[in-house]
Amino acid sequence: MVVCASNGQFHSYVNPEQIDELIDQADTILWLDLQNPQDEEIDLLREEFNFHPLAIEDATRHHERPKLDAYENYYFMVFYAIGYDTARRRLSGQPIGLFIGANYIVSVHQGEITTIDETIKRWQANAAEFGQDVGTLLYTLLDALVDDYFPVIDQLAERVEDIEEQIFERYNENALQDVFGLKRDLLQVRRVVAPERDVLNVLIRREVPIFERNSILYLQDVYDHIVRITDSIDTYRDLLSSALDAFLSVQSNRLNQIVKVLTIASIVLMTDALVAGIYGMNFDVMPELHWRFGYPLILMMTAALVLVLYRNFRKNRWL
Amino acid sequence: MVVCASNGQFHSYVNPEQIDELIDQADTILWLDLQNPQDEEIDLLREEFNFHPLAIEDATRHHERPKLDAYENYYFMVFYAIGYDTARRRLSGQPIGLFIGANYIVSVHQGEITTIDETIKRWQANAAEFGQDVGTLLYTLLDALVDDYFPVIDQLAERVEDIEEQIFERYNENALQDVFGLKRDLLQVRRVVAPERDVLNVLIRREVPIFERNSILYLQDVYDHIVRITDSIDTYRDLLSSALDAFLSVQSNRLNQIVKVLTIASIVLMTDALVAGIYGMNFDVMPELHWRFGYPLILMMTAALVLVLYRNFRKNRWL
Amino acid sequence: MVVCASNGQFHSYVNPEQIDELIDQADTILWLDLQNPQDEEIDLLREEFNFHPLAIEDATRHHERPKLDAYENYYFMVFYAIGYDTARRRLSGQPIGLFIGANYIVSVHQGEITTIDETIKRWQANAAEFGQDVGTLLYTLLDALVDDYFPVIDQLAERVEDIEEQIFERYNENALQDVFGLKRDLLQVRRVVAPERDVLNVLIRREVPIFERNSILYLQDVYDHIVRITDSIDTYRDLLSSALDAFLSVQSNRLNQIVKVLTIASIVLMTDALVAGIYGMNFDVMPELHWRFGYPLILMMTAALVLVLYRNFRKNRWL
Amino acid sequence: MVVCASNGQFHSYVNPEQIDELIDQADTILWLDLQNPQDEEIDLLREEFNFHPLAIEDATRHHERPKLDAYENYYFMVFYAIGYDTARRRLSGQPIGLFIGANYIVSVHQGEITTIDETIKRWQANAAEFGQDVGTLLYTLLDALVDDYFPVIDQLAERVEDIEEQIFERYNENALQDVFGLKRDLLQVRRVVAPERDVLNVLIRREVPIFERNSILYLQDVYDHIVRITDSIDTYRDLLSSALDAFLSVQSNRLNQIVKVLTIASIVLMTDALVAGIYGMNFDVMPELHWRFGYPLILMMTAALVLVLYRNFRKNRWL
Amino acid sequence: MVVCASNGQFHSYVNPEQIDELIDQADTILWLDLQNPQDEEIDLLREEFNFHPLAIEDATRHHERPKLDAYENYYFMVFYAIGYDTARRRLSGQPIGLFIGANYIVSVHQGEITTIDETIKRWQANAAEFGQDVGTLLYTLLDALVDDYFPVIDQLAERVEDIEEQIFERYNENALQDVFGLKRDLLQVRRVVAPERDVLNVLIRREVPIFERNSILYLQDVYDHIVRITDSIDTYRDLLSSALDAFLSVQSNRLNQIVKVLTIASIVLMTDALVAGIYGMNFDVMPELHWRFGYPLILMMTAALVLVLYRNFRKNRWL
Repeated sequence: MVVCASNGQFHSYVNPEQIDELIDQADTILWLDLQNPQDEEIDLLREEFNFHPLAIEDATRHHERPKLDAYENYYFMVFYAIGYDTARRRLSGQPIGLFIGANYIVSVHQGEITTIDETIKRWQANAAEFGQDVGTLLYTLLDALVDDYFPVIDQLAERVEDIEEQIFERYNENALQDVFGLKRDLLQVRRVVAPERDVLNVLIRREVPIFERNSILYLQDVYDHIVRITDSIDTYRDLLSSALDAFLSVQSNRLNQIVKVLTIASIVLMTDALVAGIYGMNFDVMPELHWRFGYPLILMMTAALVLVLYRNFRKNRWL
Repeated sequence: MVVCASNGQFHSYVNPEQIDELIDQADTILWLDLQNPQDEEIDLLREEFNFHPLAIEDATRHHERPKLDAYENYYFMVFYAIGYDTARRRLSGQPIGLFIGANYIVSVHQGEITTIDETIKRWQANAAEFGQDVGTLLYTLLDALVDDYFPVIDQLAERVEDIEEQIFERYNENALQDVFGLKRDLLQVRRVVAPERDVLNVLIRREVPIFERNSILYLQDVYDHIVRITDSIDTYRDLLSSALDAFLSVQSNRLNQIVKVLTIASIVLMTDALVAGIYGMNFDVMPELHWRFGYPLILMMTAALVLVLYRNFRKNRWL
Repeated sequence: MVVCASNGQFHSYVNPEQIDELIDQADTILWLDLQNPQDEEIDLLREEFNFHPLAIEDATRHHERPKLDAYENYYFMVFYAIGYDTARRRLSGQPIGLFIGANYIVSVHQGEITTIDETIKRWQANAAEFGQDVGTLLYTLLDALVDDYFPVIDQLAERVEDIEEQIFERYNENALQDVFGLKRDLLQVRRVVAPERDVLNVLIRREVPIFERNSILYLQDVYDHIVRITDSIDTYRDLLSSALDAFLSVQSNRLNQIVKVLTIASIVLMTDALVAGIYGMNFDVMPELHWRFGYPLILMMTAALVLVLYRNFRKNRWL
Repeated sequence: MVVCASNGQFHSYVNPEQIDELIDQADTILWLDLQNPQDEEIDLLREEFNFHPLAIEDATRHHERPKLDAYENYYFMVFYAIGYDTARRRLSGQPIGLFIGANYIVSVHQGEITTIDETIKRWQANAAEFGQDVGTLLYTLLDALVDDYFPVIDQLAERVEDIEEQIFERYNENALQDVFGLKRDLLQVRRVVAPERDVLNVLIRREVPIFERNSILYLQDVYDHIVRITDSIDTYRDLLSSALDAFLSVQSNRLNQIVKVLTIASIVLMTDALVAGIYGMNFDVMPELHWRFGYPLILMMTAALVLVLYRNFRKNRWL
Repeated sequence: MVVCASNGQFHSYVNPEQIDELIDQADTILWLDLQNPQDEEIDLLREEFNFHPLAIEDATRHHERPKLDAYENYYFMVFYAIGYDTARRRLSGQPIGLFIGANYIVSVHQGEITTIDETIKRWQANAAEFGQDVGTLLYTLLDALVDDYFPVIDQLAERVEDIEEQIFERYNENALQDVFGLKRDLLQVRRVVAPERDVLNVLIRREVPIFERNSILYLQDVYDHIVRITDSIDTYRDLLSSALDAFLSVQSNRLNQIVKVLTIASIVLMTDALVAGIYGMNFDVMPELHWRFGYPLILMMTAALVLVLYRNFRKNRWL
């Protein structure tokens, strides 16, 4: 639990029981960050802030969709931090529950989210710049969260390119599983990013008076980033489905090659075997058998046959 | 038939003929639950409540779509209970017809629906909390019904993962039929959930004054759940169609492997057979035949040929 | 031509020349049903009713889309009767042109449409119930027409299930043609039903004052049915495209099986043939040839080889 | 260049320099048709009519999209004539630039468009019916142009059916190329028809006062036709993509058949060859070789083997 | 850095420090073009123009989406120049940041963009025509940029046709990679063009008063071009996905052909080998072996067999 209040100066630690007094002081801005909240911290939300039970439930439950709910004196927002574990090639999405009041922000989440810590530090370092405005503080957080999406998208883009290379340059049968895994990740990111775009749209249209007029411009910027990300995701999904089709086609092509080899080898070997079979027959009268150079002649004939067939296949562009 | 009325205290059984009197008393809340309604119970709806014949028809007919119709003094709603029989891997959807008046709810359905029984019990146990408000009662029912969708969705998610495993880890030809069956189930759930989302949307936008302003928040919560469910369903459908493509690709891959084995075996065996065929020819002059170690030499030669071919295939990454 | 007028009592036959007088009497309701209209009947529409040439043209032309056009004193509607010929597995759609005035309905169609005859009979039998309201009459007709769609949809659903069975249980190559034929039928029904839904939507929203306020409820019911039908059609189309993918996959699976058999048989037979070929060679020194039990030994050896190969394939799950 | 003016009577030829005078006379209707316009004719548009350079540019440029632009005293519309050359199986789309003023129409196009000539002739023949209304004249032209689309659509429908027949009845490898060519044509028609529908929609909604209220009905008719055409195109596109899937499936089916033949023939021939190989071995002790009827017995045995295998394949439904 | 100001006459070079004075003079129009802007030039934007930090950031950052942001006294627009390097078959998109004030345009971009240089030259050459209107200047630039898209689209169209030819006329396995590369390019162009269409739409609807009423017509023209381009892109994407399906089908067809050859050759050669094998058997009693013309007879018989099989395959349309 990090409680952090500013009224000109900063108090990095605040006694929880003073919270209700602090939020009554209009010149104080309070940020309460609850990581892996315990029951007594949840009680704090209920007793000191008087938050609605539904909002508290949403904040502590996992897998909530990004959204913005209006309550009487505050807003409740769900936003996601997205990370990408390059080693394990796994996406992770951490929901953050945000209560936004006139002069406070309460953030609730499971596990550490460095972006929140950094935003708080940035605020402490530049208190003057942030002023007395919760909107600026929130924008800084959202902007930082969304900026963290770009490296994730870049990782996904790299995987798309890797898959293309696996399909077209060095054929790898596991490309298929990569395609499927990547599609799953793209769907997962999309499920987070698309409703976040809607949340930001609501904020921009000023349907919710958290932000002052002149900070809408900054929010528009975050919105533009989210739109760019959803654009990218849709493009990658489109490319992936083409990649899958291409993979099927490359597979089919390889089959053609293998069957071609089988066909050519069968024809050549069977023809030669037929010649050998003919001279293995036991007819009384087979003049060739008694020729002096019958055997080498026949061997040369079979070799010649191989050449003729080879040329023929070459001419028909089978080889 | 369960008739249950509360005016401070509870009367678990009410004489049907008194219903019209009860609903005239503004301080009484009445819940009439009709399971497998008989003709005389249907008559009750017509005579005691004066419900519209069309609404009664919709309530007793199967497979009605979820919807909300406004009548003069009451609303008629169709909502679904969805269950999943894990053993038989079958979804079941039970429509519930709900008549919602100023101080009564009438629920009509075929077969037992435990969620309704439990909601009534919860109401009886916490009468004070529910107050005199039909809206709260209805919210409790809808919330419980929608909460029951999640385990169903989890079952479907599990089946998606099972299918993926069948395709990528242990290849199973029945995966195909599972894909098809699951797609069918997802479509079936979607057909119920999508119009329910519309119904809840109408309620939230307060186009229908069943709910008081402060209970809209609770309804919004149910709505969020339904949206999350439809999101999941769409994601699973998307993954399923990728899974089907992947299945085709895995099949095609297996064909490539089989044909490779065929090709390699054919080439090796036919080459050796050709050698044997050549020394089975009956030419008078075939010096090798008279060598002392001609036979073992030839056997070794054929073995050597197998090795050379094997190396060749290895080098070309056929093996 | 059936002309039928009611002003309290019924006159099943009316002199065409009296029509203009009848429709001037507000207390008379007139239904003129024209089947395979002749030129003189078309003239009637122009002269007695003063219908617009465009509306008359639309009514007599085939394949018009369902629609609702507003003219000065009347409405012109196109609606479809859909039938399904189970024996020939063919859908048939018959357009009906409907002119709806303040106190008359004129229906124009090719071929017999039993639903119209039955609606007229029902009207004659229950004149009192229908009252003086053209709206009720029209609702009864539309409701009956839409109710007739359900058996058609049921037939299509049965064909979907039949196709699934053909694909998964008893493989049948004609399933493909059935898929294609069914898709064609679904598209055909959709092309009729989707614009009919729009027509009903216009009527429900009361943009067109044909119906009195309290009969809107009945119309809403017809609308719900049409929505349910379009839902079903979309579901079936979705299932069909999955079925086609599944069919390709089943085909591919069968190919795998066939090629497996080919591969196994080739390997077994070629190996044995190689053994026979070796002992058919004519080397002077081949000790085995002179063994007493050489021949049965070799036969047993080839049999043993078959067994070994069989086990091998079994172990690799090829059999 | 056809200049045609009517003020009660007709003047089939008008001196270009008089045009500005003619269009000042409210009781004169002028139609100027420019086919393959030369520079001096283009100058006419600029000088006599004062048309905007952009509109003139659009009228003389090819491949403009159908559209309706409002200028101060006139409208500029692009509409297409679509033809189908049955012999060469090629679609041709000719854009027509139309300037529509209070009492004049100027049509600009490349190549002959018979529909324009016929519309002018019809106008000259029935001047009274057309009256002094440019709207009626325009409607007549648009109606005639759209009516000419139907034979084109019919040709496309015929090609769809031809493709189906090629796939299901007499398998033809060129069906594929036909599918692709037809898809291309459908896309081309759609690109013309869809924006034309939008143009007509704008006209019907009376956002543009070219048409008097009572001629909107006629325009609605043209609009209905365009909607029907786009409906058909979408249906055909849907059917085509199914046809392509079906084609792949038929191909795959044929491969199954061929491989079946290969497998059966291989097994039968290799088995018999094995028997012959065995009796070609040179063991000293092979009693069968010395039997009197050994040879015919063996021949019969191989024949019997063929029969047994045949029955076996039959039983397993391979044949 | 090109600074260019006009107040009747032109000053091709302007001292940067005078910029703030120039833009205060209403009769002066200023165009500042910054290519690869250095830090001191960026400072200029901040100090002389007072542009918002966010807008400056967007202008200097790459890969921004096309957009139009309204600031207090100016607009910030992102638009793209698209080029196509025919030799390397690569698309290049260069974003241009445009600040549009009452009497100035500032363009910021990386690398040379000839269209900007040419537009400035055209302005200098025809100052009178452009007047004192920033709108006209901007239109001229946008028009020139969009006109440059057409050759790019033509290149893409050519590649689509090339791919078709590769698939249907001369089969080329690399067609697949071309399809994929082209799809990628189409997606890339679409990602630029679609939001540009939205930007132009906002301008046309006059939500943003950059343009005077009579220059909207010109803008509409640019908008029409963009719509035509997006139409084309969608058509090509549609054709490409058909092309991919067609490619799979052509591949599958080739496999059928190869397997047919394999089957026919196998059957013919194995049959003949069987005959040879039979007469290689060592039975004591094989009368044919002692016939005088046994050997040539058998050779002729095998030749006859080949002919019979050939006819048979011919009849069954295998050849």
